[in-house]
Order: sequence, then structure tokens, then C-alpha cells
Amino acid sequence: MKQLSEKILYQVITPRPAQSHKGTFGRVLIIGGTAEFGGAVIMNAMAAVYAGAGLVTVATDTANFTALHSHLPEAMVVDFNQDLTTLIQNNDVILIGSGLGDRLDILQATFRAVFPKQILIVDGSALTLLAENHINLPHARLVLTPHQMEWQRITGISIAQQAFEAFNVLGRDRLKQMPIVVLKQHHTQIYTSKDIYELPIGGPYQATGGMGDTLAGIIAGFAAQFFLASLSDVVLAAVYSHSAIADELAKTQYIVLPTQISQQLPKFMKHYAVTKP
Amino acid sequence: MKQLSEKILYQVITPRPAQSHKGTFGRVLIIGGTAEFGGAVIMNAMAAVYAGAGLVTVATDTANFTALHSHLPEAMVVDFNQDLTTLIQNNDVILIGSGLGDRLDILQATFRAVFPKQILIVDGSALTLLAENHINLPHARLVLTPHQMEWQRITGISIAQQAFEAFNVLGRDRLKQMPIVVLKQHHTQIYTSKDIYELPIGGPYQATGGMGDTLAGIIAGFAAQFFLASLSDVVLAAVYSHSAIADELAKTQYIVLPTQISQQLPKFMKHYAVTKP
Amino acid sequence: MKQLSEKILYQVITPRPAQSHKGTFGRVLIIGGTAEFGGAVIMNAMAAVYAGAGLVTVATDTANFTALHSHLPEAMVVDFNQDLTTLIQNNDVILIGSGLGDRLDILQATFRAVFPKQILIVDGSALTLLAENHINLPHARLVLTPHQMEWQRITGISIAQQAFEAFNVLGRDRLKQMPIVVLKQHHTQIYTSKDIYELPIGGPYQATGGMGDTLAGIIAGFAAQFFLASLSDVVLAAVYSHSAIADELAKTQYIVLPTQISQQLPKFMKHYAVTKP
Amino acid sequence: MKQLSEKILYQVITPRPAQSHKGTFGRVLIIGGTAEFGGAVIMNAMAAVYAGAGLVTVATDTANFTALHSHLPEAMVVDFNQDLTTLIQNNDVILIGSGLGDRLDILQATFRAVFPKQILIVDGSALTLLAENHINLPHARLVLTPHQMEWQRITGISIAQQAFEAFNVLGRDRLKQMPIVVLKQHHTQIYTSKDIYELPIGGPYQATGGMGDTLAGIIAGFAAQFFLASLSDVVLAAVYSHSAIADELAKTQYIVLPTQISQQLPKFMKHYAVTKP
Repeated sequence: MKQLSEKILYQVITPRPAQSHKGTFGRVLIIGGTAEFGGAVIMNAMAAVYAGAGLVTVATDTANFTALHSHLPEAMVVDFNQDLTTLIQNNDVILIGSGLGDRLDILQATFRAVFPKQILIVDGSALTLLAENHINLPHARLVLTPHQMEWQRITGISIAQQAFEAFNVLGRDRLKQMPIVVLKQHHTQIYTSKDIYELPIGGPYQATGGMGDTLAGIIAGFAAQFFLASLSDVVLAAVYSHSAIADELAKTQYIVLPTQISQQLPKFMKHYAVTKP
Repeated sequence: MKQLSEKILYQVITPRPAQSHKGTFGRVLIIGGTAEFGGAVIMNAMAAVYAGAGLVTVATDTANFTALHSHLPEAMVVDFNQDLTTLIQNNDVILIGSGLGDRLDILQATFRAVFPKQILIVDGSALTLLAENHINLPHARLVLTPHQMEWQRITGISIAQQAFEAFNVLGRDRLKQMPIVVLKQHHTQIYTSKDIYELPIGGPYQATGGMGDTLAGIIAGFAAQFFLASLSDVVLAAVYSHSAIADELAKTQYIVLPTQISQQLPKFMKHYAVTKP
Repeated sequence: MKQLSEKILYQVITPRPAQSHKGTFGRVLIIGGTAEFGGAVIMNAMAAVYAGAGLVTVATDTANFTALHSHLPEAMVVDFNQDLTTLIQNNDVILIGSGLGDRLDILQATFRAVFPKQILIVDGSALTLLAENHINLPHARLVLTPHQMEWQRITGISIAQQAFEAFNVLGRDRLKQMPIVVLKQHHTQIYTSKDIYELPIGGPYQATGGMGDTLAGIIAGFAAQFFLASLSDVVLAAVYSHSAIADELAKTQYIVLPTQISQQLPKFMKHYAVTKP
Repeated sequence: MKQLSEKILYQVITPRPAQSHKGTFGRVLIIGGTAEFGGAVIMNAMAAVYAGAGLVTVATDTANFTALHSHLPEAMVVDFNQDLTTLIQNNDVILIGSGLGDRLDILQATFRAVFPKQILIVDGSALTLLAENHINLPHARLVLTPHQMEWQRITGISIAQQAFEAFNVLGRDRLKQMPIVVLKQHHTQIYTSKDIYELPIGGPYQATGGMGDTLAGIIAGFAAQFFLASLSDVVLAAVYSHSAIADELAKTQYIVLPTQISQQLPKFMKHYAVTKP
């Protein structure tokens, strides 16, 4: 297991090419948010936009359109009760699951629509649906962001075992493939096909509702624009950024709100793009 | 009667354990907010989230979902016209009554559903409903937050008597039990089974609509996470924090808005967690 | 004609009594805001709340509830299509007309309901309705806030005459009484039963939509709480504050937004309450 | 081709006349925003209001009213599904197309209603509709704000040719007239009847969704109030301001959000109004 460090940020967050337009920095489609859990996709989308995704569309319950636009006129909205196939296929990165509730139908339709070359991030309720319904993951460039308990339900590996067992062997066996897994916990671990990484930063001030939705959104935003880095490195950089910003805010705050992390992203990222160690 | 002081904050607001997750810091369910008084639950929820509650759910009129999410994507929402029994029993702290209007049905259903081990905070309209309908309080770890007039209506003790009579004897007699009572007034008094406390701080800049909703939310947020302290101490710390922040803001402001107090909570609490007298 | 000066602020804005509660600082009812002009009552209400009114209720089209609460959970909302008689009579200050559109029915019902002892501020569309329909003003402590053209339509006094004629004679004749009139123009004039005052401050950076709605809200907020001053003095202080804040903001801004003025009120007012010349 | 410089700002952004009112600074009507693309008109309107337009009305899907008012109570709203003819003719500047989607009917009705003396800015979806349906532009003081690909579709001039061909000859031929064209690209070019200008500033931090909507709104806001300058100069100043603010923000931010640019306008413009080179 390798310790993740600030170095990954210098590698992944690079200056933008002058000759570019919003398409250059990727299209992100966020799918989630029932009427009760609409806050989750708002936090996804804020993170993706502030992280610098070129274009962000949110497919959600129509009940969430206004609150989303109140935070973020920069994002587009679509009713997630319509056929999303074309929309899915026209985006570079799909993030599904935050606040998705029991909408298994939407999860399955998304899994059917996604292309192998697309980046698919599976978060929140989608992971619970995955575990409960034993459905297969689609062929795509996959990122999963489970808490330890969610991961136990999906893989059958108990939380106790997760720390000791050869994760990638067991995981691969059950899932028939090896996605990148962000296993959220006190010191989050990231499982990639190359190695296992541990996040040495972050703290209990992050233990508030919506923190995971924000992380998933940062991963999506980074994946959309940093296409020159490997997807593994992109995920590592996103996870590191999320907690590094929280650590900084926690110097003067007892707790850190997820939306505060998103708002810090443009200033935080600037440093790593212009300074090289 | 004891004078409340800053000491209570050093006792109650402690550093968070590193090994923790949002569940560690408690689940708060806020019930209130008719379409006309939706602002009340928004202020409840902002206070609870900024105070550091792990997870906050607001059961309210669906008309309030969007405004709540515009302020606070971190909170989840539920229609309060559905059966809330399971939801109530899955939360650690229940705050009912801010902006509840005349919804006696919801108050009674909540009182029936709550478990004795749960913390139940009764605020605002719920106190008026209590007085008007002479319904009994349920067995729970109770906190009541009446204004003087509300308290007179509930207990039959006149405002004049409140200051002189042995409050706890009369109160216990009428209520068949002794909840913690936050009796809001110029110098707020807090009645606990141990003692009566008086708040020596605060001022008339706090005399604006929503100030009480914010206090109730801070109590809920503190009760959810500071489970190592006694509930009495938690309430005392919440009441003290609320006015201490107001005093600080009032150094440069003629009046203080309730939402400004909530926004200061993370910075305010930090000081007491890291500094010990 | 007297020149208005900063002195009026020292007179009107006084320290709050320690023994007080939100009722002490008055109840304001704002009536206005069709679905198309909902922004007007949002700006009314922000001004009244930031100015320090004890309790603010907005009677408006239900379409505006959510946007209002997104800005201001501190305010309560009521559908203005219901009978407002009791509500009107339970408030100390009524502000009617901002964004009221063509709702003559609501204006007339309000005029019928209001008591002579109540303060009634008539603004915006209500002034147009007044002029077009030649309806009589009710007996109340009246404040009118017309632009020059609106005043011409109401009184029949042309804009050219307004500057030269004995305003109060003509006005009294037509209106059968003499309300306080805030005649908005380059240097706004305020007509009271005592004298005519001219505002020497303010500037063209205030020439943006909503500036008048904010002024009306400040008048309402001041009238609700500064009951020890005469209503004339209260109106003079509100008009002066509105432009003094704008002048300060305009030192670094090409234009000033109405909502920025409201947000500055608590800090601005603090100075005059604690410092005396 | 001329290089655009800061000089244009000193020319166009002048001190406001003291004797003025909101009508002096123009009425802007923004038409656009289906339920899915409501954010576009919010960004249009924020830009126009913060730029200093006297009065801003947004004709949009009713689904967008609340989110717009949450950002901007200063703007009025109208359902764009009603007959807008009178409203169009009562405004000085019409901005149509941001987030208009496939609403060809609204575009055509607007083209029929507009007067030759009015300023008409055509942006976003309206440019796509223009290209797909080969409809003629109306007689008006026209400003078009296409991306290079949109311009290719409208004129038949390929992106490669755009840089080399005599733009104005080809454009005039196809369009039967010569509008001012803001051809958005790495170094945006502005085609006027006098000359072609190139914007030497700006950068890839602007490559985020909504940046164009904000530019269109600034053009509208400038056109409404700076009526003493030629429309060409007004457009040049708006384009320059948009990127100059972005450059300034990008000194400390990796990306710049469109709404951040709007919020900086009042401070940015102040400098050029009071300082002359």
C-alpha cells in the first residue's frame, strides 16, 4: 500500500491549453436526486463545475430543477424520468447514484446505455442498489466510491477483512472486472489496477452529510478535463484535493461543509497548476 | 440559580474522535414548517448542520423543499404528510414544532412514535398546540423551548410567578415529569433537574423573527453529536453559544440575523474545541 | 425647504431597550408581488428585516414563496388571494403596492381593513392604481412614495409645478388629507405636515430596478421599531439611510444593487445608535 | 484587423448624468430559457443587471421564475409562451436565444415584432435555429454572438475560411445585411461595419458553460445605458470587460465561473468611469 501525497496534484492539475473551448474540458452527466435527496446532485454538480468541467448536465427529478439552478445556473437540467440513452452517450463522464434512492430502473437503463470508452462513476444509492439486486456492472471505465459497509454489501468482503485480505483478488472475482474503488473510511483507500493507495490526510470535520456527493463530483470534474492523466491518477488527485481543502478549512472551523469545499476548488487548483515542486 | 458562563463550552465542545463517520455525530429529524412558516425549518436545519450534526432530515410541507435546498443541499427532505413513524425511530434527535402551525395531527403522531431513549425538542407552534389541547408529553429525553407567555399557557404559571415560584415543583406537577426547559426572555433561564441556570449574555439585537428557530436547531445539532456530555450540559452550551455569537456580531451590527448566527458556528466552535482554559 | 442631514439618523436610530422581545420592534405586513413582479416584495422584505423589524410577513402570490424564502427564511408568507383583514389588523405597519400589478381588489380590501392608528405605506403599483381609479386613501398614518410622474397622475400637479407650487395645499385638496409624501427624484423631496425636506445625497448609481422597493422596505422597518420618534422623522431617517449607504457603496462601484443596500443596514445603523454627535 | 485595448473602456464607460432615473439607463428584455436551460437566462440577467441596465425583464419558461428571483429579485419575469409583441416594443434592447432550445416559434415572433431602431442581440440556441431554418434576420440594430461552428452553420463559411476570407463580404451576401458579429474563439474577433477587431486577452479558464450567456448579458446591459457611444464601441467594450475581469480572477483561480464575472462588474466599471488615461 502506497501513501498518497501532494505530488499527485502537481502531476494531474496542469495548465490549460490556450487553444481550447468548453468541449475541451469535457461533458459531465450527473444522474441522481429523487425529490427527497435532491441535495445530493446539487452537491455533485457544484463540485464538478467548480472543479472545472466544461459542461455539466444534471438528470434528476424535476422537483430539484429550481434548487439546483439557485445554486448553479451554470448547469443544465433534464428530467431523469425520460429516456436518457442519447444524453448518456453524448457525455464523456457519467456520475450516477448520489441521492438516486430506489430508482433501480434508472440505474439499469444507464448501465445498458453506457459505452466501454466512457468513464462511469457509481456512487451513493447506486451502490446500495448494486448490492441488493446483484446486477452486473457494465463495461466502462469504472470508478466506485463506496463506504466500507456499502463495499461489504457489494463484494461480500466484511469490513474487518477489507483491511487485510487481498482486496483486488476478491473484488475482481465477485465483480468480474476490476474498477477503481475509492473505499471511504477514516483513512480512505483507493484500489487501482496498479496499486492500493492510502490517503493520509482528512479528518472527522468531514463527517457531515453530502461530503461523499462532493467527492464524487470532484472526481467527475477532474476526469472530464484531465484526460492526459490516467484515470487512476485523476481519481487519486480528486480524493487528495477533497481532503486537503477540508484540512485547510478545518484550521479555523470545527466542521467543514461540503459546499465550502467546492467553492475553494478554483483557488486550490490554481496553486498546483502554476507551481511545480 | 446559577449564572451560566463560557466554561460550559469548554466542557461540551470537545475534539472529534478521528475514527468516526457521519453516523457518529448523530441523526437529526426536524419536523415543522407549513407552507406559510417554511422559513422556520430552514433556520432549524441551517443551525443543526452548521453546528455539526452528522445527518439532518427535514419533514415539512413539500412547498418548502426547494427553498430549503437552496440554502442547504446538505439536508434531506421528506413530506410531513406521510407516516413518519419509522423515520422518527431511525433518528437520534427529533426537533418538532418550529412553524408547525395548527398541525396537531403531526404533533400527536410524533409523540406516539418517539421512544423514551430519544431526545425530543419541542419548540414554537408545538408549544402552543400543547397548551391549547392539554395533551401529555411523551416519555422521552425532553427539551422544551418556550417564551414566557407560551410557558404560562402550558403550565398555568403566570409570567410574574415564573420568576419567583419554585418552578420545578409547579412544572413537574402539571407536566407529570420534568423536561429541560429553556425559558426564553431577556436573560433566558434554563431549568434542569439539577439546577436553574441564568444566561447573563445576549441582547435586544436578537429580537428578530427566527431567532428561536435557530436556537432550537443548535440544541438539536449539539445533542446529536455531544453524546458524552449530559443533555442538560448540551442544552446549556447551545443556549450560551447562540447568544455569545450574537454578542460578537452585535459589536458591529445594530441587529443580528438568525442565519448569520448559524453561519458563524463552525468558526465559533473551533475555538472551544482546541483551547482549554 | 429644509436640507436633510445626517443629524436625523442620530435622533431616530437609538439603542434598543434591553427588556424587549421581537414584538417590541413591530410587526410589518408587506402586500404585493404578482407572479411577474415577485422580486419587488423580496426587496421590500429584505430591507424591512435587515432594518430590524421584529416580525415580517409577506402577503403575495404563492408563486413567490420559494424565492422569498431562498433569500429570507426570516420572513413569513401568506397567499394574498385570501381575506387579509385579520392579518392586516394584527400588524403595526402595512406596506402595500410594490409589484402589486393590477390587483385593485387587494388594494381596496386593504384600504377598507386598515385602522386609523396603523401606519400604511403605499408604494409602486398601488400608486398607479390610485391614480387610475381615483379611489380615496383610507384614514391611517399614511406614507406615499411616488416617483414624480406617479405623483402627477395622482394629484394632477404636473412635474414642472411640483417644484414650484405650494405642494401641501394642492396635495391636501386633492387627497382630502395630507399624507407624508416621499417624492422620488434626483434630489428626493419629503413632504410632511411640518415642512418640506430635500435629500442632498444619493446619485445616479441608484437608478436601477428595485431601488424604490428597497426604500419602501426600509421605511417600513424603521416605522415598526422606532415608535418613539415621529413618523415624519422616521421616514426622513429611512430616506437618508437608503442614499447614504448607496453613496458609500458607490465609492467603489459604478452601480449599486438594491439588495446590497439592505445587507449594509445592520452595520450602517450600528454607528448611529452608539455614536452621538 | 485591429487589436482591441483597454482604451475602449475609457471611451465607453462614462460617469452617469446626475439628472437621471432608471429609464435613462435603458430597458432590456431577455428572451430564452426553456425548463432545461433556465440557467442561461439567469446568467444573461445577472450580467445585464450588474452591468447597470436600468430595468431588466426576462421572458422565459415559468419553471425558471423562482430560480431567477433567487439570484436576482431586481429582474422582472414574464411567461415566454404569451404574445410578447408589446413587451418587445416597449424595451430598448432585446437579447434573444440563450437557452432558447428549439423554440423557433418564439424566435420568429420576436423577429416579426422588433422595430428597426431597436437593438437586437442574437445568442446561443437562436443562432442554431437561424442556421437550421434559414430564416432571415429582421431589420434592427443587430448583434450576433456565434461560436465559430455556429457561424459556419449560419454563413456557410468554414471555420478555416473564417480567419482568411473577407468576412464582411461573404457575411453580408448571405445575411443580406451586416450585423455586428462577435465571433467567439481563442482570441475572439468582432466584425463591425468599420473594421475587424481582435481581443488579445482572455484565456482557457473561461471555457466553462454559461460564459457566453454572461457575455451576451453584458453586451445587453452596456447597450442599454451607453447610448452616447456607437453600438460597435459598446460591443467592443462589453467583450473587453468580460475577458479583462476573467483575467483578473484567473490570477488566483484555475477556472472562472460566469456568475463571478457578473458580480465583479460594478467594481470593474467604476475604475474606467472615474479614471481617464
